[in-house]
Amino acid sequence: MARQERAVRTRRAILEAAAAVFDERGYDAATIADILSRAGVTKGALYFHFSSKQELAQGVLDEQFAEGGVPHRESKLQELVDVAMVLAYRMKREPMLSAGARLSLGPGMRDIFGGGSVPGWIEFTRTLLVRAKEQGELLPHVDPAETAWILSACWTGAQIYSQTLSDRSDIEERVAAVYQHICPSIATPAMLARLDIAGDRGERVSAEMRRGPGRGATQEAEPALS
Amino acid sequence: MARQERAVRTRRAILEAAAAVFDERGYDAATIADILSRAGVTKGALYFHFSSKQELAQGVLDEQFAEGGVPHRESKLQELVDVAMVLAYRMKREPMLSAGARLSLGPGMRDIFGGGSVPGWIEFTRTLLVRAKEQGELLPHVDPAETAWILSACWTGAQIYSQTLSDRSDIEERVAAVYQHICPSIATPAMLARLDIAGDRGERVSAEMRRGPGRGATQEAEPALS
Repeated sequence: MARQERAVRTRRAILEAAAAVFDERGYDAATIADILSRAGVTKGALYFHFSSKQELAQGVLDEQFAEGGVPHRESKLQELVDVAMVLAYRMKREPMLSAGARLSLGPGMRDIFGGGSVPGWIEFTRTLLVRAKEQGELLPHVDPAETAWILSACWTGAQIYSQTLSDRSDIEERVAAVYQHICPSIATPAMLARLDIAGDRGERVSAEMRRGPGRGATQEAEPALS
Repeated sequence: MARQERAVRTRRAILEAAAAVFDERGYDAATIADILSRAGVTKGALYFHFSSKQELAQGVLDEQFAEGGVPHRESKLQELVDVAMVLAYRMKREPMLSAGARLSLGPGMRDIFGGGSVPGWIEFTRTLLVRAKEQGELLPHVDPAETAWILSACWTGAQIYSQTLSDRSDIEERVAAVYQHICPSIATPAMLARLDIAGDRGERVSAEMRRGPGRGATQEAEPALS
């Protein structure tokens, strides 16, 4: 039991070191030696958990969304905004997330990781948009598959610009502005009037998630749909 | 004269080879040896024009937009759409452009190239939006600086997703969809009704540019604003 716990902790330390190295140097330039010296573990320990650089990167990608989603909302468009804003909030604070984003993008990455987390992220967005549309939150012309692609791509563009131009200091305001620019084209006016797309939405939802359910938090933060 | 012409041609060949190598491998992984063997020139010829890998990359970045802009339009929002769509059209066909995009983005690139072409691209967009707003094409709440940032970032996000997921085969439809999702939030209804954001807009404007002015092309393609 203690041995298993130690193994879990070692695996996590290796993945965190790998994420930091991939985030700083990119997949091609990163070496297992870099990751070893960052993690402070033996070569044997690393190879016990991961047999190659590619497996390490896959581990980082798998870990990316392992923490679970935001609280469910009656409005699925609000839930989508919450996911986008919480990710922006966490992206600034967790190398595991930003490394995942870097591993998912760029030429060559498709061949190695099949687009990384991008196809899953688009599909997740599409599913929420389909439900939002069924509930009457979206305008009739909206094609959930197309809009899911666009929302995901624009989120990523804002993330990359914010990283390139300001070291992500403004990522939350920028992601909010993306949604503020797109939601009026896809949501009904009644939905728009109830949508919370403020720049601090990610921070507030993250606090709600830390408090956990059962303290009225979900109800309090959830925008009423009807 | 002949010698100078040869020098210009050699410089161009080196830049094209550099663009192809940066586009495929990224800045960090690219080597001058790769570029030399791709360009088929001597080491002496290369170092006569460029003293370092960084100078080569800067040369690619400078070349990116050297071809000049799209035809002027009475509607500045249409002109902006045209620039975005022509870039999408050319990005699929010219390594110089896609290499420039790759060099402009990502961690570390800011320190080396000051964000590459990104700040200039945002500022160019802002200038057109300011004029569009002065002409009454935009809704009163639009902040040209913020919207310029968002439009540029979303363009880039669509470019990267298209490259990662489909080798840029759908880049024109995706960039058009970005504008179709954002313009209703920023343009007046009368402007929207006149805006041409079809997926083949870039191809049509490029053909117009090849035909050149003086054949009625500009008038024909320009959407009337009043």
